[in-house]
Amino acid sequence: MDADIITIGDEILIGQIVDTNSAWMAQRLNDEGINIRQITSISDQPEHISGTLYESASKVAVVLVTGGLGPTKDDRTKKAVCSFFETHLIENLTVLDHIRQILSPRGIPINSLNRDQALVPETATILHNKLGTAPGLWFNHKGTIFVFMPGVPFEMKYLMDHEVIPRLRKLFNTPTIIHRTILTYGLGESTLAEKIEYWEDNLPGSISLAYLPSPQSVRLRLTARGENKNFLLKSLDQKIQELQEIIPSYIFGYDDETMAGNIGSILCDRGMTLAVAESCTGGYLAHIITLNPGSSKYFKGGIIAYSNEVKINILGVESNCISDRGAVSKEVVESMAEGVRGIMNTDYGIATSGIAGPDGGTTDKPVGTVWIAIAGPDHTISGVYSFANNRERNIIRSSQTALNMLRLELLKK
Amino acid sequence: MDADIITIGDEILIGQIVDTNSAWMAQRLNDEGINIRQITSISDQPEHISGTLYESASKVAVVLVTGGLGPTKDDRTKKAVCSFFETHLIENLTVLDHIRQILSPRGIPINSLNRDQALVPETATILHNKLGTAPGLWFNHKGTIFVFMPGVPFEMKYLMDHEVIPRLRKLFNTPTIIHRTILTYGLGESTLAEKIEYWEDNLPGSISLAYLPSPQSVRLRLTARGENKNFLLKSLDQKIQELQEIIPSYIFGYDDETMAGNIGSILCDRGMTLAVAESCTGGYLAHIITLNPGSSKYFKGGIIAYSNEVKINILGVESNCISDRGAVSKEVVESMAEGVRGIMNTDYGIATSGIAGPDGGTTDKPVGTVWIAIAGPDHTISGVYSFANNRERNIIRSSQTALNMLRLELLKK
Repeated sequence: MDADIITIGDEILIGQIVDTNSAWMAQRLNDEGINIRQITSISDQPEHISGTLYESASKVAVVLVTGGLGPTKDDRTKKAVCSFFETHLIENLTVLDHIRQILSPRGIPINSLNRDQALVPETATILHNKLGTAPGLWFNHKGTIFVFMPGVPFEMKYLMDHEVIPRLRKLFNTPTIIHRTILTYGLGESTLAEKIEYWEDNLPGSISLAYLPSPQSVRLRLTARGENKNFLLKSLDQKIQELQEIIPSYIFGYDDETMAGNIGSILCDRGMTLAVAESCTGGYLAHIITLNPGSSKYFKGGIIAYSNEVKINILGVESNCISDRGAVSKEVVESMAEGVRGIMNTDYGIATSGIAGPDGGTTDKPVGTVWIAIAGPDHTISGVYSFANNRERNIIRSSQTALNMLRLELLKK
Repeated sequence: MDADIITIGDEILIGQIVDTNSAWMAQRLNDEGINIRQITSISDQPEHISGTLYESASKVAVVLVTGGLGPTKDDRTKKAVCSFFETHLIENLTVLDHIRQILSPRGIPINSLNRDQALVPETATILHNKLGTAPGLWFNHKGTIFVFMPGVPFEMKYLMDHEVIPRLRKLFNTPTIIHRTILTYGLGESTLAEKIEYWEDNLPGSISLAYLPSPQSVRLRLTARGENKNFLLKSLDQKIQELQEIIPSYIFGYDDETMAGNIGSILCDRGMTLAVAESCTGGYLAHIITLNPGSSKYFKGGIIAYSNEVKINILGVESNCISDRGAVSKEVVESMAEGVRGIMNTDYGIATSGIAGPDGGTTDKPVGTVWIAIAGPDHTISGVYSFANNRERNIIRSSQTALNMLRLELLKK
């Protein structure tokens, strides 16, 4: 079954706010087996509203609308709504009472703008908005369901969870849709596509695949649709198992997991600890590690060794090693990793040293050249990478690659 | 003049990603005096694509499309585009050459999927995408401009800034619009609004004001519209000067400046240096400092002192100071700031220690409690803050507040 999402209001069209409501609603509806055909953001001009409602009604079974119901501007939306549904506004005493109950403890006297919020289209079913003054409106109009909700995210979410989703469930017998996302690192989108081409070509008709690339990873999203939930789960599991055999070491997690989080779980399980010594990544590597709640269990800390002075005096890198080999070298980065592992007394030490840009590149070591080392209980490994020309992306990719090197090292055990 | 934005791809419709591109584009186009009529997110089904393009063409002068141009199989956009514009794909050797240049330094051999990216609609003007393999496409079709860009944010932004906006400027004679953004920190949106109410009420009709709050700052965007550029510039300058007198110490910069960048300029000018000691911010403070190119001139490095062991052994905090006062205390954070200033031999040291959450809060020190200290040549200052319940936001706000404390300290001289 298909649905459309429409957001009304200027804030999104002038780029003042990012529309996070639609993604949230889309995900919730997908979980219910309802497919989103289109998301549309429009202004609150009456002709634009009615034109968009009319268009959606001809294409989908459910139309969900947010915005345009606040206390200051709702006049235009409500009038457009009334004219579209060929009805008129009446005062709803339950809503008025609720508005009074919300405002009086805050010591706010009810004014004419608040009073107007109790005016609702006569043919609408009122959805009680426990968290705000604007009620939700539900119409069953010529075979299409229309739902209007306020644009305030927590009010919309409350109405979706408590009023809209339960009603949609009752009304429609929706198919099951299950998503699984496989997180990969180390292969570009097209190389990955080539490697798994045979597997992809042999996906059953009930499962579709999408590639979602980012600097952090290439995510593979599998979507299974059908009637039998157990069967779909089984097919998904089987295809994921097959994929694990094709690209075992490139998969670092599933769904909402992160590389740093998964490394954290492994370290926690083994009772092991980690420290970092960062030059070119300048604190970002420690940041993505410490973004995880509970990281203090395995992450002791780090040294941001931006100047050579810090590399020498705190990490114990030999000064002639830097002058002979350069700060961006195998020898220096390995010495940094071993140094931080030693002084922080951890099982593993990660170090980065590179040229993030835009300046500092040479013919030998152009911008984007990054050395990464992992010092562990048994040995130290290192590698050199060539990233791109953009400072921020170099920092992100260096940090993610460093974590991936540690992950592969941990998997060896 | 009106424009539509269309995003193609399933990621947004299933709610897997939030559409941040559209808000960014809307803002940029608004800056050019182009009004966004509608933002539409659709799937990559050919009929849906052509139907949406057709609909937009009848309503606006410019249609900007993102997404659906990646190298893998899930992209059916190009075929739909060819059929809509009644053209066909041809191989573009400039694009092919560029793809080779992008992939070869990374050691990635060109495969058939990459090769396909050099296939472009014959009637399109190719927009060179310096940062990626998928070029932008520009059509002037029956009086409407259509632009197709990849959905990867930094590639889209590059194309918008370097190819699309300059062409739109040449093509359309839009009124003069000048934006100036004033960056403030330290006042909430409503307190700020109250403080500058008289100033705001006396803005001339040619200048409008928007509040853009974020965890980093409250930005005030002034937009001047009119025919006479010099007159607009003069009015803007005058109003900004007035504002500087009303809220002098709350303004930390203008337009694209950042707090960390401005602090860097001051330190550079004075030949002074900086180091950080981070507990709860876990590397993020160093990260926003080192995001600035050239930060190595004044930033020597930092210690991420996540464990107390590191606070004691490396920063030299007294262990009974931690046991008596707790790691989140005035005494410990001041000792951390002085410690890192000493061992890194810098003019200033910043330190943070707090409870980022979600765990670790107590009745005395709930989640969001953060101590920040600045150690300088003359003295050490510190302060305690109560932020919110969200780990990531606490990290961002603590780091920004720490920088602001240093900024105010530097301004005293």
